[in-house]
Amino acid sequence: MIIVMKKGFDENQLRKVLERIVELGANPFPVSGREQTTISVVGPTHEIEERAFLGFEGIEKVVRVSKPYKLAARLAQAQPTQIKVGECDIGDGSFLVMAGPCSVESEEQTLRIAHAVKKAGATMLRGGAFKPRSSPYSFQGMGAEGLKILKQAKEETGLPIVSEVMDIQQLELALDVVDMLQIGARNMQNFALLKELGKVNKPILLKRGMSATVEEWLMSAEYIMAGGNSQVLLCERGIRSFDNQFARNSLDLNVVPILRELTHLPVVVDPSHGTGYRHLVSPMALAGMAAGADALIVEVHDRPSEALSDGPQALLPTDLDQLMLKLSQMGDILGKRVQTSQTAKQNSEGAKQNKVA
Amino acid sequence: MIIVMKKGFDENQLRKVLERIVELGANPFPVSGREQTTISVVGPTHEIEERAFLGFEGIEKVVRVSKPYKLAARLAQAQPTQIKVGECDIGDGSFLVMAGPCSVESEEQTLRIAHAVKKAGATMLRGGAFKPRSSPYSFQGMGAEGLKILKQAKEETGLPIVSEVMDIQQLELALDVVDMLQIGARNMQNFALLKELGKVNKPILLKRGMSATVEEWLMSAEYIMAGGNSQVLLCERGIRSFDNQFARNSLDLNVVPILRELTHLPVVVDPSHGTGYRHLVSPMALAGMAAGADALIVEVHDRPSEALSDGPQALLPTDLDQLMLKLSQMGDILGKRVQTSQTAKQNSEGAKQNKVA
Amino acid sequence: MIIVMKKGFDENQLRKVLERIVELGANPFPVSGREQTTISVVGPTHEIEERAFLGFEGIEKVVRVSKPYKLAARLAQAQPTQIKVGECDIGDGSFLVMAGPCSVESEEQTLRIAHAVKKAGATMLRGGAFKPRSSPYSFQGMGAEGLKILKQAKEETGLPIVSEVMDIQQLELALDVVDMLQIGARNMQNFALLKELGKVNKPILLKRGMSATVEEWLMSAEYIMAGGNSQVLLCERGIRSFDNQFARNSLDLNVVPILRELTHLPVVVDPSHGTGYRHLVSPMALAGMAAGADALIVEVHDRPSEALSDGPQALLPTDLDQLMLKLSQMGDILGKRVQTSQTAKQNSEGAKQNKVA
Amino acid sequence: MIIVMKKGFDENQLRKVLERIVELGANPFPVSGREQTTISVVGPTHEIEERAFLGFEGIEKVVRVSKPYKLAARLAQAQPTQIKVGECDIGDGSFLVMAGPCSVESEEQTLRIAHAVKKAGATMLRGGAFKPRSSPYSFQGMGAEGLKILKQAKEETGLPIVSEVMDIQQLELALDVVDMLQIGARNMQNFALLKELGKVNKPILLKRGMSATVEEWLMSAEYIMAGGNSQVLLCERGIRSFDNQFARNSLDLNVVPILRELTHLPVVVDPSHGTGYRHLVSPMALAGMAAGADALIVEVHDRPSEALSDGPQALLPTDLDQLMLKLSQMGDILGKRVQTSQTAKQNSEGAKQNKVA
Repeated sequence: MIIVMKKGFDENQLRKVLERIVELGANPFPVSGREQTTISVVGPTHEIEERAFLGFEGIEKVVRVSKPYKLAARLAQAQPTQIKVGECDIGDGSFLVMAGPCSVESEEQTLRIAHAVKKAGATMLRGGAFKPRSSPYSFQGMGAEGLKILKQAKEETGLPIVSEVMDIQQLELALDVVDMLQIGARNMQNFALLKELGKVNKPILLKRGMSATVEEWLMSAEYIMAGGNSQVLLCERGIRSFDNQFARNSLDLNVVPILRELTHLPVVVDPSHGTGYRHLVSPMALAGMAAGADALIVEVHDRPSEALSDGPQALLPTDLDQLMLKLSQMGDILGKRVQTSQTAKQNSEGAKQNKVA
Repeated sequence: MIIVMKKGFDENQLRKVLERIVELGANPFPVSGREQTTISVVGPTHEIEERAFLGFEGIEKVVRVSKPYKLAARLAQAQPTQIKVGECDIGDGSFLVMAGPCSVESEEQTLRIAHAVKKAGATMLRGGAFKPRSSPYSFQGMGAEGLKILKQAKEETGLPIVSEVMDIQQLELALDVVDMLQIGARNMQNFALLKELGKVNKPILLKRGMSATVEEWLMSAEYIMAGGNSQVLLCERGIRSFDNQFARNSLDLNVVPILRELTHLPVVVDPSHGTGYRHLVSPMALAGMAAGADALIVEVHDRPSEALSDGPQALLPTDLDQLMLKLSQMGDILGKRVQTSQTAKQNSEGAKQNKVA
Repeated sequence: MIIVMKKGFDENQLRKVLERIVELGANPFPVSGREQTTISVVGPTHEIEERAFLGFEGIEKVVRVSKPYKLAARLAQAQPTQIKVGECDIGDGSFLVMAGPCSVESEEQTLRIAHAVKKAGATMLRGGAFKPRSSPYSFQGMGAEGLKILKQAKEETGLPIVSEVMDIQQLELALDVVDMLQIGARNMQNFALLKELGKVNKPILLKRGMSATVEEWLMSAEYIMAGGNSQVLLCERGIRSFDNQFARNSLDLNVVPILRELTHLPVVVDPSHGTGYRHLVSPMALAGMAAGADALIVEVHDRPSEALSDGPQALLPTDLDQLMLKLSQMGDILGKRVQTSQTAKQNSEGAKQNKVA
Repeated sequence: MIIVMKKGFDENQLRKVLERIVELGANPFPVSGREQTTISVVGPTHEIEERAFLGFEGIEKVVRVSKPYKLAARLAQAQPTQIKVGECDIGDGSFLVMAGPCSVESEEQTLRIAHAVKKAGATMLRGGAFKPRSSPYSFQGMGAEGLKILKQAKEETGLPIVSEVMDIQQLELALDVVDMLQIGARNMQNFALLKELGKVNKPILLKRGMSATVEEWLMSAEYIMAGGNSQVLLCERGIRSFDNQFARNSLDLNVVPILRELTHLPVVVDPSHGTGYRHLVSPMALAGMAAGADALIVEVHDRPSEALSDGPQALLPTDLDQLMLKLSQMGDILGKRVQTSQTAKQNSEGAKQNKVA
């Protein structure tokens, strides 16, 4: 951190600033140049807020040089974090797709879609049992019942499960069933929940808040890591912009290469929420891979007009089939092997042979 | 709700849409004009999402005519909601100020500021025991200990307390002490928490989320009201914009007259978070009153450079004195009597007499 | 400007940076602290962009300490800039209102509204002859014909005219008639036009761009001032936000006290464009005054449903009457005398007497 | 357009609305359902603004069903617009890259980079002679001199030129040299300029305004097309968001598939301005292709630390070499043949042979 003193500051003001730095557990190195006096602040500066100094007299500006996060920073770890979920590896340079319905609506619906998803080649199943809905009058998810259905889908298909929890009280139930816990955009700064997640021994898919800066997002990851859980994945799902006439959110793919430089954590892209409409999902899924993501999470429904939530953004199973094929081909070019379920591998090999033939 | 069919839709598509409307518990009234076929949907449309129809074939557009909220709507109640907290009345056409430190930092600091706040004429005391902080390394609030200090401050000054809860698990403790529960911007869509607040018999100060639309905000109020608690106050605290160089947030005062038309709930303005810097707080507090708010909530600290959080945006007690005086004068012009604490009334009358003399 | 070198930078990298600073006409003062090497850059740094250094190796961060604008800065001039337009003074601590129709639509309409505006007490007449419209199929303004009508309105009422120019080619015509040139939000960074305005000897009402930062806005004022015209007024007219369901723009009143600190130029608020709907205009006009503005510009129409543009945001003449009265009373409290036209003064005195009586 | 009447409207109000529709040249078809009365408005509704009706009594809501643009709409033309610039084809299903320096800085610099760009395989040369700069103290471009240099570069390399004009007065000069006129983000709604461009017989690369909605952008294209010039390309260059710490803008790739559905005009992506930093440009260029763009425009500089503008976002020539190779491989997968300059083709074939070998 660098503190720039105002021109004409007095010694008393400087002394107070220096004392405060020491109080905060850091060391001040004032340097008086001809034109400006600056103070380099060294030590555990990630524990100090810039704003803490803005209340002082005689200070012109406070500039953070180091990152406010520590464990999530690229510097903290040379190698990318690799996360293993069942047989799936995320962050090892390969690529995978998590897919499934927005909401668990019934046993029949969930199993049907789970099989379709597996057949297409996705290697994890997504599905919401607890649903954050902006209206109290909308379908709120099947809750505990939904989790049971997800458990069954996992037993039948072998696909590991990713599913959302919205509150500490839902954690215990979910931990029984879910292989990766999803934290939704609206909870990215639910700090009480983040602290609990630090004690959990499961990977956390941390979605970006609707208008969260990259730094705030990494700080939320830091909350979980500081609590002891280093298995965090960052999921871009679209930010709020001034134009939502043709897309619900604006998928901010810039953050994919940005995060690659700032952190060792894996990056996931959600083109379903990031666009909100089926016809935009596949192009933006491909764009997500091209930008450098480690994985995608997409919504799939075989009867979207009957879906209890987010039907308009669900891919059809046949859309997913085609998307998986394109991803697999693009992955070859980009040096990202696409992981696929066993069934899918066989299908895909069949398809390739047909193509060659 | 009005559904506009695409030109050239077929009968089968129309039939499916009509069936779905009935399934959802509403009644469809299709009207075939020469140029367009539209369906008026009547019934409990606040329970139906527009998006539910976007997955259907043959639909051009879905337009909501009625509001998606019901209890919070102006239509639901002719009179403004009045909320009584101790001796304070909010929403009855008068005006009041809640003030106090950002965080409860110690008994001594809290009592000192509480007395200053009362002396200036504010009639409620704010102070955070549980603090939402974007960094896990920042001061997280004194928790239960902080609540005890607030209780003491209330006993000493008689000022009712408004304080934040961040999680369901903090509710029980807080309910013992706090007269009005504050829900922070980051929790505006913490739906699990909102549902619990519906069961509480205390007023809820619901801050607007950082990038929440007016409608989303009202829907969050509706969550609480639908749960059974109709004492909700809406607090504008600044939205996220593209420019945060000179203010942390952009205080969106347009929403004050907007909410006045849409809802019967009282509207509170927080110019401290809405600007982030002391020298902006008083002008924007006056602007908040001029725009039509029912109350202000402002941060005050007598030693801002020692504050453990948000020192730069805290008014000094002398700033608050002056602000209260201006508010009181402006209130006379605008037909909004400013409620003041007993002590303040005496001071103020003294001041007025001096002025006259 | 302060340049922070990366840890482990090499001497060669430092040398290149120092050389470049000299090339750019400034002086570098490198200071090697134990922990960080920083370079203070002194001289005409407003001519240097921070970004110019981001392409160098070995640089961690570049921080601007001084402002990128010079002439517009508070430092450049101790006294507020006062602008005289006819008998009107702006920036002298008093307050005034510019009012009139969005567009000049006909001689009859313009004169009718001009008289109403004068009667209400506004002291300048606004009215658009050249209209920026987002659709090529919308009414584009009466052009030269419209200017003639404005001239006539000025002759009849004595009110000075403020009107927009959209292009250099319209300047000559407008200069004949218009007392203050308005530059619209969409032209705030039309740099070719700004340069021409620097050569003009008339005050420029510079509206803020739809998503312009405060600094960009001041830089646009600087363009005009650097060209030789120091009579610039800054007009806030609402920024683009994520929610335009109930207001077209979000009137950003925070900038009023912000600009007061950064610049000596007068600040004007436009609550008509800043909200977009009649019922929001008066509350936000009062809020603009309370926040500290020097003047308002508002749209008025006596037959808004016939207006060729922006009818829904036009005040009725009777609305303006009431607004002027409230402004005048609030101005007394806030130490801002409201300038009024002669007619209005007489009316208002009559009204006050009635009230007293 | 559909107008929804308020419940309890009176006949007189309805009559006024119907009359107004007729006055505006359209036909009203009122339909009274049991629950709602709506008016379908038929005819040249792209010439009518929704807002025109908001000033009327008795109207609840006005909903546009048809697009406000006509010529730019997909409906207006079944086939994608194909634009021919020299030997380059844009919009025919293939893909091309325009590259070059941000600014023309000198003959030597421009020719050097032009040759590098051609060698890498780009088929058009970009370079700014007139530069929109937010500071009046920044380098403003070489102007007419710069255009001469571009002409020379074209003669030497055979690459067609794309370059920006900022004002009508620069048009004549530019038309002599430039093969495609670029209109910058800040001029997207410079309507006087757009009207002139309608009379020009050269393709227009219309950049999206910093916070322009998709519809506003298409309306600006419509201005040019309504003037008679149908050769318009839409260029996404990043939008303004709440976070610019790690990228200058947020490249909004969602609009690529969105525009594909709304319009027949070709879509270009500018990852240089869309990110602002070199290390982000190539990933986002690949993402742009994957999202479905027809072309890229990228900045290239061989000595970025000496660049007079935007050095930090310029690719090095070697970066461009690698990018072109990846684009070409990805293009094969995505069915988009990448056009390359003759030189590049030879190089690339050499490279492929080496790889195979």
